[in-house]
Amino acid sequence: MDDCTFCDIASRRAPASIVYSDERVTAFLDHNPVTPGHLMVIPNGHYALLEELPEDLGAHVFTVATRLAAALRSSGLPCEGINLFLADGEAAFQEVFHTHLHVVPRVPGDGFTIEASAWSGPKPSRDSLEANAEAIRAALPERWSGS
Amino acid sequence: MDDCTFCDIASRRAPASIVYSDERVTAFLDHNPVTPGHLMVIPNGHYALLEELPEDLGAHVFTVATRLAAALRSSGLPCEGINLFLADGEAAFQEVFHTHLHVVPRVPGDGFTIEASAWSGPKPSRDSLEANAEAIRAALPERWSGS
Repeated sequence: MDDCTFCDIASRRAPASIVYSDERVTAFLDHNPVTPGHLMVIPNGHYALLEELPEDLGAHVFTVATRLAAALRSSGLPCEGINLFLADGEAAFQEVFHTHLHVVPRVPGDGFTIEASAWSGPKPSRDSLEANAEAIRAALPERWSGS
Repeated sequence: MDDCTFCDIASRRAPASIVYSDERVTAFLDHNPVTPGHLMVIPNGHYALLEELPEDLGAHVFTVATRLAAALRSSGLPCEGINLFLADGEAAFQEVFHTHLHVVPRVPGDGFTIEASAWSGPKPSRDSLEANAEAIRAALPERWSGS
């Protein structure tokens, strides 16, 4: 797509520090990293949101991310843990609308934090959880209803 | 495994508000949610860390998470975006050592924040990014070296 930074990286029209690529995905270092070695895995094709991404391609993105997580752990870069993070939609902090999965190497005291105001309040009741579960189950297509 | 909360949930020995399950994975509501509808997808078998999880099972965990993300968006629960989050290792905020992928519905102003102290400093140089990329590429097995 025109005017998409990540399409430009996947097609090598824009510079990036690429760590892996194949016919379907490209992985490269985030230029504004949370920690050294922070990278992203993108599909080479343009899919703005997660719901547009074909399932088999999404599965490959995840598999490549887990391989890169293992590589980070043995790379010599500081890495005692890994976060995988995907932001789907502006409300979820997505900034580039070409879906991407972050792979973030972590060490204690690295300055990355997550907070939720809900954690300071009371936990929801089982009845409340069950009501939400029922709403989600009802929204799953029949063929995905599981056991 | 004995004494694993998530093994107990997958085997139905412990209560949980389950939204989906099949022979390989179970998805249920987090009992201390970031937002209403926050859920987790786990493999039914016990794998403490991501690196222990077979690749095809990891891919299925991700696929189910994306299906549930779509269900959340049409469930009627507040959801204008989705975060997928996986914490692998204590340094990455993993608390239950049975690997799990969070699926978090998001709306603006929902009280969930992420911060990185690195974002307030200068961005790394291309040389620095390239050096890190080279360390990661060198740690990838030959058969995963891509193009």
